[in-house]
This record gives sequence, structure tokens and C-alpha cells, in this order.
Amino acid sequence: MGASRTCRPGIRGLNGSVERGHVHTSDIYLYSACTALPGPPVDNAALARRFGLGALWEQWADTFIGTRSRYLAICLDTGEISHTLADLGETAARRALSAVGLLPGAVDVVVMGTATPDALMPATVNMIADRLGMNHLPTYQLQSGCAGAIGALDVAYQALLTGRHETALVVGGDVGVKHYDFSLDLAALPPEQQVNALLFGVGAGAAVLGTQPAPGAPRIRRLFVEFTGLGRPPGQVVEWFGQADRGSGRPGGAEDYKAIEELVPAMAGQILRALLDDLDWKQGELDFLLPPQLSGRMSERIARELAVPEARLVSCVHETGNNGNALVFHQLERLLPQMSSGDRAIAIAVESSKWIKAGLALEAE
Amino acid sequence: MGASRTCRPGIRGLNGSVERGHVHTSDIYLYSACTALPGPPVDNAALARRFGLGALWEQWADTFIGTRSRYLAICLDTGEISHTLADLGETAARRALSAVGLLPGAVDVVVMGTATPDALMPATVNMIADRLGMNHLPTYQLQSGCAGAIGALDVAYQALLTGRHETALVVGGDVGVKHYDFSLDLAALPPEQQVNALLFGVGAGAAVLGTQPAPGAPRIRRLFVEFTGLGRPPGQVVEWFGQADRGSGRPGGAEDYKAIEELVPAMAGQILRALLDDLDWKQGELDFLLPPQLSGRMSERIARELAVPEARLVSCVHETGNNGNALVFHQLERLLPQMSSGDRAIAIAVESSKWIKAGLALEAE
Repeated sequence: MGASRTCRPGIRGLNGSVERGHVHTSDIYLYSACTALPGPPVDNAALARRFGLGALWEQWADTFIGTRSRYLAICLDTGEISHTLADLGETAARRALSAVGLLPGAVDVVVMGTATPDALMPATVNMIADRLGMNHLPTYQLQSGCAGAIGALDVAYQALLTGRHETALVVGGDVGVKHYDFSLDLAALPPEQQVNALLFGVGAGAAVLGTQPAPGAPRIRRLFVEFTGLGRPPGQVVEWFGQADRGSGRPGGAEDYKAIEELVPAMAGQILRALLDDLDWKQGELDFLLPPQLSGRMSERIARELAVPEARLVSCVHETGNNGNALVFHQLERLLPQMSSGDRAIAIAVESSKWIKAGLALEAE
Repeated sequence: MGASRTCRPGIRGLNGSVERGHVHTSDIYLYSACTALPGPPVDNAALARRFGLGALWEQWADTFIGTRSRYLAICLDTGEISHTLADLGETAARRALSAVGLLPGAVDVVVMGTATPDALMPATVNMIADRLGMNHLPTYQLQSGCAGAIGALDVAYQALLTGRHETALVVGGDVGVKHYDFSLDLAALPPEQQVNALLFGVGAGAAVLGTQPAPGAPRIRRLFVEFTGLGRPPGQVVEWFGQADRGSGRPGGAEDYKAIEELVPAMAGQILRALLDDLDWKQGELDFLLPPQLSGRMSERIARELAVPEARLVSCVHETGNNGNALVFHQLERLLPQMSSGDRAIAIAVESSKWIKAGLALEAE
């Protein structure tokens, strides 16, 4: 880590050259996690004003949803878009790299996760790589929902485990402004549709991972994503429209909140137990718990049901809103400065789209 | 391979358990490659009829573009959509698995590449996993263009290299019917826009990879994707529209054919030389060349310029059209039955979106 490892252009050779002396490793470290949000936050009062919903609604939102603010990358009054995913992803990536004194040239591989790329092509990860001045390295972009941050970390982790690469930049975020319909008469909708205006936000995060130990960088003990949706209808659908079918009457998306409320807490419990069992960690030995981030209220409830009272909770959704692939980075950004030698942390993500479990276990050296 | 390796539910444990005795390997084998197309093919005569373009246009298309047919998954007369990406991906996956006598339960990890997923969420890879009866395994979907098949193979390759998994299913395809605007007055457009109706097609492919040698399964000697677009504008852009911006006047996409014609042949040459050098293979030792698939004509030209006369060419685009993430699977499906012991093959893909190089080198045992 540090200045000596920055800027090594042109010495990588082909990415596939695992047979030429690279050394497999099973120790991968998380060096940094940073985020980027388009300020200022939009609180429930601002939403209530914009949609003519009044103080009672605002109180309902604060109390029963528990998401008190979010960031929108779109002006509530004019509808003007202020930030793209590439904008926020670039900023988060720069922050994550400078947090550990690395220049973009030190990165060997970039992996991104998002449900809402700026375009279908080029992949946003490549627009970000370009802006960072990177070239001649593999980039991958996962199409994913709330499990995507851990999915992207997982693909980077595997790339590092093979010994092909030493330093990975992982980016995640969602800027779904193309789906924000401010012409909507929110007041006329039933609460289960009003809730969408409260839940979701935009943002991006980034992390740097590598094969070398570094001060303050916890080791990744476990990292997994697991499709578990066999025979179960999707809990969340988000459509896209092409040039030819823009006029179609198809809805842009749908959520099955009932299924989400029922299944996500149970799935979170399964993820926690699987990680603890697999690592042979006792529940009381967990120092930090990063629960799934749905709404402020739901995340509180899930954390309570997970019943790890000894662990400090690290949540963000009550302030950031559910910004999808950025969430875990927000949590990691809050976690890392708090970890001391020997500390153990588990992050849990559940993607309700087609019911994906994701988990990450970290241990400070 | 074979019946003894099918159906091993529930013995995987957590995907992250690399520390529990899994063995790293650098030998990964390509067992099978199969494809699925929505029949029947649409030839240039059918397109000419549909758009009132006449026999001269048809001749121009045959001769100067060299893409003689494609598959559209949409009825030329009614506009009715016949196949989704999940439909074709499922069929291709079933074929690739049965080609090697594996049941879906034998697969440890699924990776998919596409530029045109059926929805933003759930990822199409998960809808396909569901249809195949899979559960409790990691799935990843890359957002990518023409380099995406090799990108998806690469992510699977890395997952296998880590020793976390033994058998991977890789799927790639594009069904961009949301972008097919049959209300277009093609006859009124300049040739550089007419060409889009000729070039693109739909389809899907799949491959099975694994860590165990098997009869007729070549070894993967090199596999890489490389972003090379620093400072260079995208050569291809494909937009998506959300619920809120369907009415926007933004165009659905753009191609810079001049840049593509200039850069792709040179990039193909660089990929070929990099692979040959890295493997210490002489040009005359290459038995099969799978050139990039843009149009029948362009692919012929690129293959000629690559100047490997001893190698047999494996192309498909003149028949399939450019169906993006399916192309390399079509080429591999044609290649595998032709390979004999000791044969060497190189596949080259170039993604013009943001200028991505991709290459794959295979050697039959």
C-alpha cells in the first residue's frame, strides 16, 4: 500500500496469465469504502410540500417508514437532473482511492454493481474508468439490485483470489432518476404506492480491495451471493423501455411489499446464521452488524429480530434512503473507522427482485 | 463428467469457503457450447419486402454488408414479440447442459452477459436459473456488449480458478426487440441508418465450463477482457428509458461506424498478437481463428487482414446477424466438433461501445 504501489502502467500483460508465476492467495483485505451523494438531502417535509401532502403525512412517513431523508439527483421543482451514475460513481471511486493513497493507475481490475446504469451501452463502469484516467484493465458491471454491492465485491474478490490481480476497485450505485415521475399525483395514490416516493434514493459508493495486508484494513473472511428464488415470484420488478416501446402501456415496475416484509427478515436470519456457523463464530463474538437496508423502520425491526444485542448496529437507510447498490458502501464507510484489532463484522443484504441472499464477514487483523 | 456428477444439492456450503480445503487450479475446460435462435431466419429479401425497398437494395445488402440473414424474435408483419431473452437463454442453457450429460443441479455458479436484459430487475440470469430448477447458487449478470460473452466466460473462469466452484454455466445473448421500430420508414433513411436493420439480430448461447478434464473438452489457455477506451468517445451507445422519461425526445442509440471500421480491425490484430506472444504460439500453429463478428463483410475483411491463412475461420454473423452476447457461443458451437487433439484456437471479440478488447485461447488436450 502507499506511494510505492501507485502507477504501474503496462506491466500487467494479459489478464489471463495465471500460469506465469502468479501466486494464489486466500487473504484479501478491504482497504477503504467511501460514498458520494448529491446534496442536499430531501427530507419528508420537502416531499410533503412538493406533493401537497401536509404535516400528517410527513409524520406518518417519519414514524411508520422511518426513512427521514434521501438524495434524488433531480430538482424537485424543475425536474432537472443534477447527477448521473457516472458522476457519483467517479466521485466515490476517487474518495476510496485517495483514502488509501492510491492513484487510479494502481488499480488492476474494476467491478461495478447497479440496477440503473446510465445507458445499456457503454457500461457505466467504463465511463467511470475513462474519467479516472484508467486504461488497459478488465472491467465488469453487474446488473443487480440490493445484493449487487456484495455481488460486485464478490467478483472482485474472486479476481484477486486467482492471483491474476492485486488491487481491485469496486463501485456500486443507483441513480434511477429516469423512473422518478414528478407529474404523479401522489396524494391520490394509496399508501403502498406513496411509499415508493419515500423509500428510494440515489447514491454511489466505492471500495478498494487488495491482496496485501495494510493498517486498519480488515480481512474478508467470507463473501457470498446466493440465488434462492426457485419457484418464487419476483418481489421487485423494474422495467426498461427501448426506442420502439416507449409508448407501450406497460408499468415501469412493481413491488410486492407483503412478500418483502415476510421474507426479508427470515432470509436475513439465515444469512447471519450461515456466516456464523461457517466461521465458527459465536453470536456474542460479533462486534458489528450491518443489517439489510430497506427502510429505516424495516431495518430496525430486522436488526431487532436478528437478536445480536452485543453487536453495534451500522445502518444508513434512515438518512440515505434505499439507494440500492450504494447501501453496503455507506455502511462500510461508517464501519471501517470503528473497527479495532480483532473486531468482527457481518454485513447482510437481501435482494427481493428474485430473492438473493448476500453476506460479507470481516475481521480486523 | 457424466451421470455421477449430476444433482448434488445442498453440499456446497457457503460460496465463500475457500479456506476450507478447496484446491486452487489453473486448468479449466470448456465442455460444451450451444445456442438458441427464434426461427425462421429473416433474409434480406424479407426485409426488403417489409420496408418496400426492392431488389436492388437486397443485392446491396447481400454484397456490401454481407449479413444475409438474422433472427428477430418479433413478427415482421404484426410486431408481436415471440421470444424473451429468458426464453432463448433457457433453451441454450438446456442444450449446453444436455450436450455433456449434466443436469442443472450439477452447476455451481451461473454467469450471464447481455446488453439487453428483459428487465432491469430481476436480472435475467435469475429468471433463467429459476426456469432450470436451480437454487442456492451464485449468479452474476454482466451488462456488456460484444465483449460480454468472453467477459461472462472470464467471470466464470475466475470463479472456477479460485477453487470455490467446479462447474459453471455461462449464458450470453441479446434480444433487443424493445429497440426494433417497425414503424420506421426505412426507405427514407440514409444507408448508414438503413444498415442497422441489416446488422443486428437476436439470439442466445450457453457454455459449460469445469475443473475436470473431459473427452473433447479443450483447455482454456487464456481468457481476458480489457477496457482500452481511455479518452476515446463511445463507438456505440444504446439508451434505456424509464417510466418517467418515456416521452423524452432523446434518441435510443447511436453508432459511429467510421470509428468502428477504423479501430476494430486494428484492435483485433492487437488481441491476436497479444495472445500468440503470451502463449508463445507461432502464427502457423493456430488451427482455428474466430474473428470478431460485426457484419459478414467486415468479419471477412478483418479475418483477411489478420493474415493467419493456415487457420480455419469460424464465423456465423453472415447467417445469425450481430446478436451481441450470443456471437461467441455460436462460433464455439461450430468450433468444438472440429477440434482434434493438440488443436489450437483463438477467439477475438471487440466491443465498440467503449472499446473493449476480449480474447480466448483454447487448446485441445
